[in-house]
Amino acid sequence: MIRGYTSPRTPEGRSSLVPYPPWHYVGAFLVVDYWADPEQAVAFLPEGIAPHPDPGRCAFVAADWQSCSEQGEELVDPSRSQYKEVFVVVNGLLDGDEVTVCAYIWVDRDFALTRGWIQGFPKKLGSIWITRSFGLGGPADPGMEPGARFGATCAAYERRVAQCTVTLEHLSAGGPFHNAPPIVNVRYFPRLAAGRHDDPAVHELVRAVSRARASSEVWEGAATLELFGAGHEEIDALAPIRIGRGYRFSFGYTVDDLETVRDLRG
Amino acid sequence: MIRGYTSPRTPEGRSSLVPYPPWHYVGAFLVVDYWADPEQAVAFLPEGIAPHPDPGRCAFVAADWQSCSEQGEELVDPSRSQYKEVFVVVNGLLDGDEVTVCAYIWVDRDFALTRGWIQGFPKKLGSIWITRSFGLGGPADPGMEPGARFGATCAAYERRVAQCTVTLEHLSAGGPFHNAPPIVNVRYFPRLAAGRHDDPAVHELVRAVSRARASSEVWEGAATLELFGAGHEEIDALAPIRIGRGYRFSFGYTVDDLETVRDLRG
Amino acid sequence: MIRGYTSPRTPEGRSSLVPYPPWHYVGAFLVVDYWADPEQAVAFLPEGIAPHPDPGRCAFVAADWQSCSEQGEELVDPSRSQYKEVFVVVNGLLDGDEVTVCAYIWVDRDFALTRGWIQGFPKKLGSIWITRSFGLGGPADPGMEPGARFGATCAAYERRVAQCTVTLEHLSAGGPFHNAPPIVNVRYFPRLAAGRHDDPAVHELVRAVSRARASSEVWEGAATLELFGAGHEEIDALAPIRIGRGYRFSFGYTVDDLETVRDLRG
Amino acid sequence: MIRGYTSPRTPEGRSSLVPYPPWHYVGAFLVVDYWADPEQAVAFLPEGIAPHPDPGRCAFVAADWQSCSEQGEELVDPSRSQYKEVFVVVNGLLDGDEVTVCAYIWVDRDFALTRGWIQGFPKKLGSIWITRSFGLGGPADPGMEPGARFGATCAAYERRVAQCTVTLEHLSAGGPFHNAPPIVNVRYFPRLAAGRHDDPAVHELVRAVSRARASSEVWEGAATLELFGAGHEEIDALAPIRIGRGYRFSFGYTVDDLETVRDLRG
Repeated sequence: MIRGYTSPRTPEGRSSLVPYPPWHYVGAFLVVDYWADPEQAVAFLPEGIAPHPDPGRCAFVAADWQSCSEQGEELVDPSRSQYKEVFVVVNGLLDGDEVTVCAYIWVDRDFALTRGWIQGFPKKLGSIWITRSFGLGGPADPGMEPGARFGATCAAYERRVAQCTVTLEHLSAGGPFHNAPPIVNVRYFPRLAAGRHDDPAVHELVRAVSRARASSEVWEGAATLELFGAGHEEIDALAPIRIGRGYRFSFGYTVDDLETVRDLRG
Repeated sequence: MIRGYTSPRTPEGRSSLVPYPPWHYVGAFLVVDYWADPEQAVAFLPEGIAPHPDPGRCAFVAADWQSCSEQGEELVDPSRSQYKEVFVVVNGLLDGDEVTVCAYIWVDRDFALTRGWIQGFPKKLGSIWITRSFGLGGPADPGMEPGARFGATCAAYERRVAQCTVTLEHLSAGGPFHNAPPIVNVRYFPRLAAGRHDDPAVHELVRAVSRARASSEVWEGAATLELFGAGHEEIDALAPIRIGRGYRFSFGYTVDDLETVRDLRG
Repeated sequence: MIRGYTSPRTPEGRSSLVPYPPWHYVGAFLVVDYWADPEQAVAFLPEGIAPHPDPGRCAFVAADWQSCSEQGEELVDPSRSQYKEVFVVVNGLLDGDEVTVCAYIWVDRDFALTRGWIQGFPKKLGSIWITRSFGLGGPADPGMEPGARFGATCAAYERRVAQCTVTLEHLSAGGPFHNAPPIVNVRYFPRLAAGRHDDPAVHELVRAVSRARASSEVWEGAATLELFGAGHEEIDALAPIRIGRGYRFSFGYTVDDLETVRDLRG
Repeated sequence: MIRGYTSPRTPEGRSSLVPYPPWHYVGAFLVVDYWADPEQAVAFLPEGIAPHPDPGRCAFVAADWQSCSEQGEELVDPSRSQYKEVFVVVNGLLDGDEVTVCAYIWVDRDFALTRGWIQGFPKKLGSIWITRSFGLGGPADPGMEPGARFGATCAAYERRVAQCTVTLEHLSAGGPFHNAPPIVNVRYFPRLAAGRHDDPAVHELVRAVSRARASSEVWEGAATLELFGAGHEEIDALAPIRIGRGYRFSFGYTVDDLETVRDLRG
């Protein structure tokens, strides 16, 4: 019998693109709280999610991740554990409660792309770069201190689609606000059978579940953010009309569960 | 309302990683007919597929593709239309009829990876290279003639997993045999809800459907083939114990349908 | 003794990034004849090259290459033989004779980058895509016929810097004009010793030498071209103010010589 | 006049693949002290370097770098500042003094490749991955503590050529020994003129010069190391016959000078 959590499923089951949960993560984050045009932002909310009272509220996130499954062998074969990610969440309401919805997300590795689809993240591949701190100081190391500048960039299909900077000022009391509510996504897997291209096999609103969450202290400061459109990307519809604060911190968690909120199939 | 054939689904619907069918394809192919260890080959067959009477029958395929959707705009933005692919099919029987099953497949672009999952191909990303013919001759152009040598290589997670060569001898009467039967795959999309990691949302045996198939004349000749294992790949289990003929040709078709043979969910 | 044509030079001499000449090439080309702002174009000419009487004359070239050294083993290990390239030449005069100078060039493989530096091409890495023709027809294959559309794109450091299209109309009588004159480049290898950063070890005007040149018939048609700047690229200074015809053809040659025209060191 | 430290030299001088020194660096390092077969190791020493009394002494180094030039703008456009690197040094004697020579080195970005050639490092492009520590702990973060495991892998032309692991045990009193002596390299830039392919334009023994060196504390522990050959790589000739200790630390410095020891041209 072939086995494994995902394709390719094989006799020994050690070839799956995504290994069985749990998945453990740790990463360095840049977050920019911002506001998009409210009408445009609301248009990205899926069925089942109502506009937020502050309807243009969005957050831009760049994350430099290392992840592994239970045995952790990927950690010493790091092409299987490291990836970078850029995404935008739009704020909304689910049954009256604040939630965020991931409207766009790019990652740079296949296992992360597919692991995202399983969780309802609408991932595509991109090429992502994020300034790092090395804890040593000197002109090539921004450090974690007032004046330290960090940047993140994302390109998709050979065009830059996003770039941000954050210049640290001081430790943050509250951390980022716009990506704080629970994340709600849409798991979607279409059919290819003729006549059923709009009748997906899987279409459900899901709420992310995680555990063992840990965060470093959070720094905040001034931020810049630009989002660029392309024939194949509508991310410019979520471009900032007002930019809040930027944040930098490290964060880790474990995922091995997901809650289905609602089946959205016809 | 957000729309599109796949995630990310957006207000204008032009951001989907995979656009709506039909998908038109054209490509240059290297195929090697070969035999793996029969016991190992049979172990890769999914539920519903019986062993072939010649149970080790496999084919190795390397394809250098260009594809587009109905409007064809990807053709002049070719990072969205070109990709390369390497795969192995194992022969089997479905209700007594000869079929092939794709046991392993690597592609080098995200849209091709996800388009494959929708069709039941167990795609992962790889780095693939295939010798080309330019129709001009000279020492850097093998041409299509006796003695012309072509090679294909595939690496996954930084390790070479496959390499083959084909040295053309003459036009082929029958073309490759081992990948000739219809292809039957497994569409598989897992759940992440705790306790349901082995209870997939989608698990079905599907038969590929295509139309507008066109092929160039086929050349054949002597072939070599090596398949290498890794911690994350069992492709060495399908390594050749005997190698048949190699083939080179161009091929195109259109896909906008898929036939579900059987639901494999518990 | 360590040996080899370039670093890394080793005991067996088979590790050099660039193997010994001769280098044999074959490729598929898109060329766009165009005019940049004359003042800007002239500013890119190196010492020793005078402005052309038609001083804004430039050509944009996208080439999809396969190359090998004398033994040709790279052809069946094609990650070592294939690369794509985009470049812009500016027309000028050398001692009264028409020449072209390569102002910008991107390639996508290391051996091509360094082989270019040895020839005086100012290569950087880029990500380049070029529409292909497969000779089979169908909606994914533009073919070589009136109405066939080809595109090329180039990105550098995650930003698109160039894109063009050519729509074939008919066979061309003369082929492209703006890249026809002999190419003259600048071999430049700086010093790092303190105080000598502007006193290069190698700085010479060189004229390309090639042999065994072969070309297919040439198609021509209408063209578009856009060149985009960035903090790290001044290619927008060579953006078109007028666009001529576009061309598509295949071309091959052999290189194992280079003529030094003039030493430009202090 | 065109200007810039390297090609492409342009009117504004901001397009050079490598910007003017100084170059500031900071990075995270894995080092493995080891011994290769003495006869093989000695064969990699360039003219002017005598065998070390312990002639097989080598070190393997994997470095995860961030670098910038004086203005530091690359730091917030990090595709221009970050790169990863794997290299092997062989120990030798220069005029009786201990030195190291870099026999092989791979990097993953073009600016680092060319910056290396200018310094005499025989760089090629590779695909390199190195386990990271995030200072947060948890199952995906090895941390800097006894038992923490780090790995590094390198692939070149689609084949894995090197992999190592280091398992931390305790702070190190002395740090790595085998890469401690000053590094001496060979700047080499060949000619292409017919008949002069073995008569390089630049061929000189150089000693690295750096300043503003800073290091974190150094951890050490048990190490593994494997080096694999290929048709285009002789790194297996430097495979370990004995492995010493492994080390992990952060390191930074500034480079804007280089000392020429000897001209090696005919």
